Amino acid sequence: MKLVLDAMGGDHAPTETVAGAVDYARRSGHTVILTGLEDIIQAELAQHDIAGLDLVVVHASESIGMDEKPAMAARRKRDNSMAVGMRLVKAGEADAFCTVGHTGGALTAGHMVFRRIPGVHRAVLTTPFPCAKGLFILGDIGANPDCKPEWLAQWGQMLAIYAQARLGKEQPKVALLSNGEEEGKGKELTRATEPLLAELLGEAYIGVVEPKEMIAGAADVIVTDGFTGNIVIKLAEAIASYLMQVIKAEIMARPVAKIGAALARPAFKAAGARLDDREYGAGLLLGLNGIVTVGHGRSRRDRVYFALRNTAQLVEANMLERVRTEVAASVRR
Amino acid sequence: MKLVLDAMGGDHAPTETVAGAVDYARRSGHTVILTGLEDIIQAELAQHDIAGLDLVVVHASESIGMDEKPAMAARRKRDNSMAVGMRLVKAGEADAFCTVGHTGGALTAGHMVFRRIPGVHRAVLTTPFPCAKGLFILGDIGANPDCKPEWLAQWGQMLAIYAQARLGKEQPKVALLSNGEEEGKGKELTRATEPLLAELLGEAYIGVVEPKEMIAGAADVIVTDGFTGNIVIKLAEAIASYLMQVIKAEIMARPVAKIGAALARPAFKAAGARLDDREYGAGLLLGLNGIVTVGHGRSRRDRVYFALRNTAQLVEANMLERVRTEVAASVRR
Repeated sequence: MKLVLDAMGGDHAPTETVAGAVDYARRSGHTVILTGLEDIIQAELAQHDIAGLDLVVVHASESIGMDEKPAMAARRKRDNSMAVGMRLVKAGEADAFCTVGHTGGALTAGHMVFRRIPGVHRAVLTTPFPCAKGLFILGDIGANPDCKPEWLAQWGQMLAIYAQARLGKEQPKVALLSNGEEEGKGKELTRATEPLLAELLGEAYIGVVEPKEMIAGAADVIVTDGFTGNIVIKLAEAIASYLMQVIKAEIMARPVAKIGAALARPAFKAAGARLDDREYGAGLLLGLNGIVTVGHGRSRRDRVYFALRNTAQLVEANMLERVRTEVAASVRR
Repeated sequence: MKLVLDAMGGDHAPTETVAGAVDYARRSGHTVILTGLEDIIQAELAQHDIAGLDLVVVHASESIGMDEKPAMAARRKRDNSMAVGMRLVKAGEADAFCTVGHTGGALTAGHMVFRRIPGVHRAVLTTPFPCAKGLFILGDIGANPDCKPEWLAQWGQMLAIYAQARLGKEQPKVALLSNGEEEGKGKELTRATEPLLAELLGEAYIGVVEPKEMIAGAADVIVTDGFTGNIVIKLAEAIASYLMQVIKAEIMARPVAKIGAALARPAFKAAGARLDDREYGAGLLLGLNGIVTVGHGRSRRDRVYFALRNTAQLVEANMLERVRTEVAASVRR
């Protein structure tokens, strides 16, 4: 297995990206190819004991900064660390590409280098998301704010294959996010998508779900447009952090409650760990003719490690070939 | 002040609706007109000491059940308790109408009885929502899943007047919910709405906000389409309840943490009270030519009380006339 990591991507690159890659190479025995400014990456590698590890540096003279306009930067800087890494995958010199850099940059570079799998309407950005039953796959979470029904239906099909590879669900249940099943609920897009999903997925499609059912774990895959999906992940994070802030403020205002909270700390930590997205690793840009995973921009070495591990999982599951085959079969039907 | 309450609406009608009305009549000295099945309402009133209170019962032979298709029921049952109550307001026999019954029913009956204020594109369903700085006004939260830019812009204008009346903000800041300001963010609808809001509201419009900024309290009014708004309120509720459930489960699994949590209980209760929507009372269906407020279907007497009190606040602020004047002035411009 050979994975490419964009060493220059993310808020804490290259120190944390390189450290995560070293850790992953050690624990997996896989090859990790680091793309970016060679001198800088080598200087970071010199901080680690890398004897016997399969770490390769491939020079890229440019990179896409977290504060740049990503699409423009990806187009202008042809030798950026993302495009250089993706071209290695395209040339067959590596199996998959991973970055914790700019999602928009990965989107543009990914389309430029890999193009879409034949028959795929649009690539979908997707991530595992926590719920009462573990994780489910949510997509689109931001690549396509305005969508057509047939895109969403096809994403249901592709995300089911991803859920098999990523969550180990043999027969994933697929649902469409809406605001209710009753008369007058849903919007034009969801109403037009429903019959297409039912036709394409048969019994694997379980219908529309509300946010409450989504969080309860009613489905393994939840399809939505990229505007709604992006609002969902951002709102969930905002609500959770606001709630914890309110609880903390009320505890700090009460001396006895402070003692109580100290005793309950292990429970709070365990709850935090269940909700933490560290181990979800990376989201996936699905529908491109190559595996492109995108982790959180704030990733430190442990998250970079998980991002690489999740990327390897998709290669091992032969996910891309299965998506190609399924899509081709549907197009022929 | 005379308010009409739909005695038959909500999961706990008529026991809790009547009890809330009695409480409100006692504490406010206002008249409350209860619409619904007269015998049943009178039997409920007989459970209370109502001497000296201004409570009136107006018979309505039908009602819209919580499990009915609301639009159809509102059209078929012309003598339903919502329509009967609204007609009293329209005839000038009362100042405003309040229900904790079916939102869809109130929407349909409201449009049938009051019609829209001249110049209003679409009525908007809106609610106060908690954030780090108190409350803000969010709308549309479900009346219009598919929207046009000019509707959203006008809602910004109308909701600012509502925020003045409801939150006492003299110069409310209005924002548009989006998934980011950067290149490639937003959707067609939000991009087309932005210039319209800027033109209509001038400096009162502060631009787009992300969910994080919304929860931080960046604006007093946040405008969005009814699909997104409905997902937002439902997801916020689902996330908050899931989070509490996870924390509780981790505490219960640890004897020491259980003792700690018992000591911290007052802090948890205070946090709960800050987030509880009891006192927000009722949402408002704004844009109709009459005041129609809609409280939570699960409301018990205390929430019914707050729903009536918030309704009275809008009458006292002369909100409807101010909306009529503003809309008329914009249409002329």
